[in-house]
Amino acid sequence: MVSEDIERLISLLAKLPGLGPRSARRATLALIKRKETLLIPLSKAMATAGEAIRTCSVCGNMDTRDPCKLCNDPRRDDKLICVVEDVADLWALERTASFRGRYHVLGGTLSALDGVGPEDLNIPKLITRASDEKITEVILATNATVDGQTTAHYIADRLAGANVTISGLAHGVPVGGELDYLDDGTLSAALKARRPV
Amino acid sequence: MVSEDIERLISLLAKLPGLGPRSARRATLALIKRKETLLIPLSKAMATAGEAIRTCSVCGNMDTRDPCKLCNDPRRDDKLICVVEDVADLWALERTASFRGRYHVLGGTLSALDGVGPEDLNIPKLITRASDEKITEVILATNATVDGQTTAHYIADRLAGANVTISGLAHGVPVGGELDYLDDGTLSAALKARRPV
Repeated sequence: MVSEDIERLISLLAKLPGLGPRSARRATLALIKRKETLLIPLSKAMATAGEAIRTCSVCGNMDTRDPCKLCNDPRRDDKLICVVEDVADLWALERTASFRGRYHVLGGTLSALDGVGPEDLNIPKLITRASDEKITEVILATNATVDGQTTAHYIADRLAGANVTISGLAHGVPVGGELDYLDDGTLSAALKARRPV
Repeated sequence: MVSEDIERLISLLAKLPGLGPRSARRATLALIKRKETLLIPLSKAMATAGEAIRTCSVCGNMDTRDPCKLCNDPRRDDKLICVVEDVADLWALERTASFRGRYHVLGGTLSALDGVGPEDLNIPKLITRASDEKITEVILATNATVDGQTTAHYIADRLAGANVTISGLAHGVPVGGELDYLDDGTLSAALKARRPV
């Protein structure tokens, strides 16, 4: 139907999350219609990223530098490490602009079902980092799922010997959330952790 | 938050139809995690397409060749021209594999509101092509919208002198469609054009 080059572009775009075969066709059409302003700049941005992006040897973040921008930033607090499952979680926390310490990206969660053990994650490096005496607190910001919490418990156990405070994210009512739509677990956690106004 | 190269990739991906800032971030993460299998091949496919894609000087289709694959194909019927608004419509018709003639892509519709006149579309070339004596039929497959139909009427007028049959797509009940959900216009068109079974 169309030339092989266009077919190839469609089938690669269809592999992106959120794009199926149909929307990949639409995206390809948009790209070839806006060759100068979109297709060529995007191809160059991808080539640059493809050459430059690496995993940070300190924290496991992905960036074009190693150590990454966050590990390099002298204005960040060296005393705090926030442990997250994935780069996406790090980005989410950074968007809030409310944490100014360092990060540690695990690259997943422990999972007996999927055969993911501690040696498959970025945990040994975390233990080494946490044993540095300038670290005072490790915040376990894994997801509030079973796997995420299992991983957090495991890390807390491993860090029990180190001289650091170990904390986790607070559970409670989401800001802007309606009680009526909340699950029972969250609601009772919010009630238990109630605070004086 | 992240390096400028990644930010740039996110903001360019967010310009694709069907992707917003949030899904562009997800897509970027997927790309940088699958550097070898997705990011680099996609960047190369885009660069190839960017270099090679041009508008077909015969029909207005976009392809890596000029004349395009469809204009070049010796197995297609030279007597029929199917006129469409956009390359996307050409692709849609080609997917049905039920038309084996040639195409002509207008590149839009006439629109008094947007100031699009006949000289802004690929119409003069269509008139020239249709005056070739081997052409026997021109199928006007513009969209069934007001602008699409206006454009079809205009072209039909311009071709009145040429020795060709001018036809349009049939209106009717979509295959698999339920009468209850159809608009009145389509339903009465289907009734008017009823056929012996």
